[in-house]
Amino acid sequence: MGSTRLEAFSDGVLAIIITIMVLELKVPHGATLDSLTPLWPVFISYALSFVYIGIYWNNHHHMLHVCRRVTGGILWANLHLLFWLSLVPFVTGWMGENHFAVVPTAIYGVVLLLAGIAYWILQITIIRSQGPDSTLARAVGRDAKGRLSPLLYVLAILAALFLHPGVAGALYVIVALMWLIPDQRIERIASSPGNLT
Amino acid sequence: MGSTRLEAFSDGVLAIIITIMVLELKVPHGATLDSLTPLWPVFISYALSFVYIGIYWNNHHHMLHVCRRVTGGILWANLHLLFWLSLVPFVTGWMGENHFAVVPTAIYGVVLLLAGIAYWILQITIIRSQGPDSTLARAVGRDAKGRLSPLLYVLAILAALFLHPGVAGALYVIVALMWLIPDQRIERIASSPGNLT
Amino acid sequence: MGSTRLEAFSDGVLAIIITIMVLELKVPHGATLDSLTPLWPVFISYALSFVYIGIYWNNHHHMLHVCRRVTGGILWANLHLLFWLSLVPFVTGWMGENHFAVVPTAIYGVVLLLAGIAYWILQITIIRSQGPDSTLARAVGRDAKGRLSPLLYVLAILAALFLHPGVAGALYVIVALMWLIPDQRIERIASSPGNLT
Amino acid sequence: MGSTRLEAFSDGVLAIIITIMVLELKVPHGATLDSLTPLWPVFISYALSFVYIGIYWNNHHHMLHVCRRVTGGILWANLHLLFWLSLVPFVTGWMGENHFAVVPTAIYGVVLLLAGIAYWILQITIIRSQGPDSTLARAVGRDAKGRLSPLLYVLAILAALFLHPGVAGALYVIVALMWLIPDQRIERIASSPGNLT
Repeated sequence: MGSTRLEAFSDGVLAIIITIMVLELKVPHGATLDSLTPLWPVFISYALSFVYIGIYWNNHHHMLHVCRRVTGGILWANLHLLFWLSLVPFVTGWMGENHFAVVPTAIYGVVLLLAGIAYWILQITIIRSQGPDSTLARAVGRDAKGRLSPLLYVLAILAALFLHPGVAGALYVIVALMWLIPDQRIERIASSPGNLT
Repeated sequence: MGSTRLEAFSDGVLAIIITIMVLELKVPHGATLDSLTPLWPVFISYALSFVYIGIYWNNHHHMLHVCRRVTGGILWANLHLLFWLSLVPFVTGWMGENHFAVVPTAIYGVVLLLAGIAYWILQITIIRSQGPDSTLARAVGRDAKGRLSPLLYVLAILAALFLHPGVAGALYVIVALMWLIPDQRIERIASSPGNLT
Repeated sequence: MGSTRLEAFSDGVLAIIITIMVLELKVPHGATLDSLTPLWPVFISYALSFVYIGIYWNNHHHMLHVCRRVTGGILWANLHLLFWLSLVPFVTGWMGENHFAVVPTAIYGVVLLLAGIAYWILQITIIRSQGPDSTLARAVGRDAKGRLSPLLYVLAILAALFLHPGVAGALYVIVALMWLIPDQRIERIASSPGNLT
Repeated sequence: MGSTRLEAFSDGVLAIIITIMVLELKVPHGATLDSLTPLWPVFISYALSFVYIGIYWNNHHHMLHVCRRVTGGILWANLHLLFWLSLVPFVTGWMGENHFAVVPTAIYGVVLLLAGIAYWILQITIIRSQGPDSTLARAVGRDAKGRLSPLLYVLAILAALFLHPGVAGALYVIVALMWLIPDQRIERIASSPGNLT
């Protein structure tokens, strides 16, 4: 069984997640620029989460591209990832509407952390099913970014709780920037002839 | 006519169902952990229904994979299944917001039961159109899980009404766990050479 | 240019239309069976519209299946159809919440009529681009159902306004039943060898 | 890597954007024709935005059709375009509910302008990756419409602020009409044999 339908379903869920987040931007009743002012934190948290979902879609795209065979384990590891990502609109709205208050900003990091762990589980599940010499296994061999992200999420959660939510926000932006570049290791190895298992 | 577009449409509907359920998790007004407390039942019912829709997507995926020819009857049996599944977000929200009260918990089981019957009708319709010697017919020959589920749903409905909604909830979890493993009979037979009709 | 992406986009829009309609079924606050009672008209109008969108998806599926070449005109005729269908959730909710009152029931028919006209325009546009001897042209040659539906919609609108909304509702159900069988003329001609243009 | 999954994801997001806009058409409580009257501005702004999203889908469709290779830069330029388009439902609802008041009508133009710039960036990114002699590069060589639109958006924004929102509305309609015809330059060049790079 190929990965086409898995990709189609994941694309659908990610497309819906990225789009329903905008529903948290409630249309204001006033018709002046001032009536947009209270929406700024919601808009900023929307933009941040849009980038995060985009990053997940992007990397998911690359990872499944080298996945030759879909097993039951991969299907469920993928749904597990989508579950945590489906909570992103909720925590995005909560953080935005509360103007980056302490607890919502920390919980936002918790959901990002759980999604990151779910992505890591999916990666391991795919590698295990494709064999240790597969393209993906070698591509993520020295997965610096994948190891750094959870650490930074934990730091951000602690910073939100004990320092200032602004520090957490800065860390979320840093992780996003770090990932904005798609996983070029996979791209490079997958495109070099003779490397596909 | 192949099953590609049927799969695409079903994937779309299932992806939307699984994602709009999260809209029942209304963003709370407070910014403390306490303001999340009343959301726990909604979150748990969301997670349960997420797994159920995932199971349906998963088995649907496997079933259509062995469906060579799509007839009008299959199209409508499929829409019938999607109809009952589209009510899952409604009953999920109702059960969650009422903290697993008696009637909503029973009605949740009724919708699961009707979706299960619709899945069974779809399976029969596909088998009939593919012929009794088809891969699917042999794969579901001794469909123990498919026969047990409706029975457990009926038991859960009765338990919710006459014993305690918690018993029903436990039964819903048991059915979900039972199905979490994808239908390996189909996978096994479909992947063994010479077996495809 | 093939019709694949046109189908994918249409499938997406129809899948979303069919699913967001269920959002009009607002989760009631009470936890008793009585609290579901006021939802019956909304549920019935939801089920009716679900069948209608299903019919459109089904016939759209068959029609595009014989469309070999997508032109700009076809793209816009298709979007025009999707526009009127996108209003179905609105009129469905309005009719249901007002318990099939006179004006909402008539306006429901107006939207169905406009969608029907848009489908007819799309059909003509496809036939014109494929040539008068194409599969589709011959298939819809004696399009009895396609000519009867708009007439019945007009009758239903008049019946809602001047007789009783119940008569209109019965006519909507009759049209739906009439279409439930997919367009077998196309299916038959398209599947007979040597007939494809 | 081909453009299939990029198209599928974009189709999904555009299908959701075009459909959730209709949720701003709130079902009125009354059951008379009068209760629809206050919805006219919302309906008109919905129809306008529906056409705009349709235009973007249409041109996006044509542009990606000549894109042979998807790079990381193209993925992100595409997400950047989807980001601004995802704000269209918000500004559509705001403009409609405020009956085309000065500020919402101007902000509507700002979002259209930013989406137009994002489309232009995506086009440049694709051309750069495909080479200056590619089909697309030649097709958009004398991109009159692409240069005129941003100018007209700026004029519309200024007109909304300093003249009358109606002038801005007329300009938005003019730009939409101008684009309703799909990008025939690409279609013509792409379909002429020997022109594909």
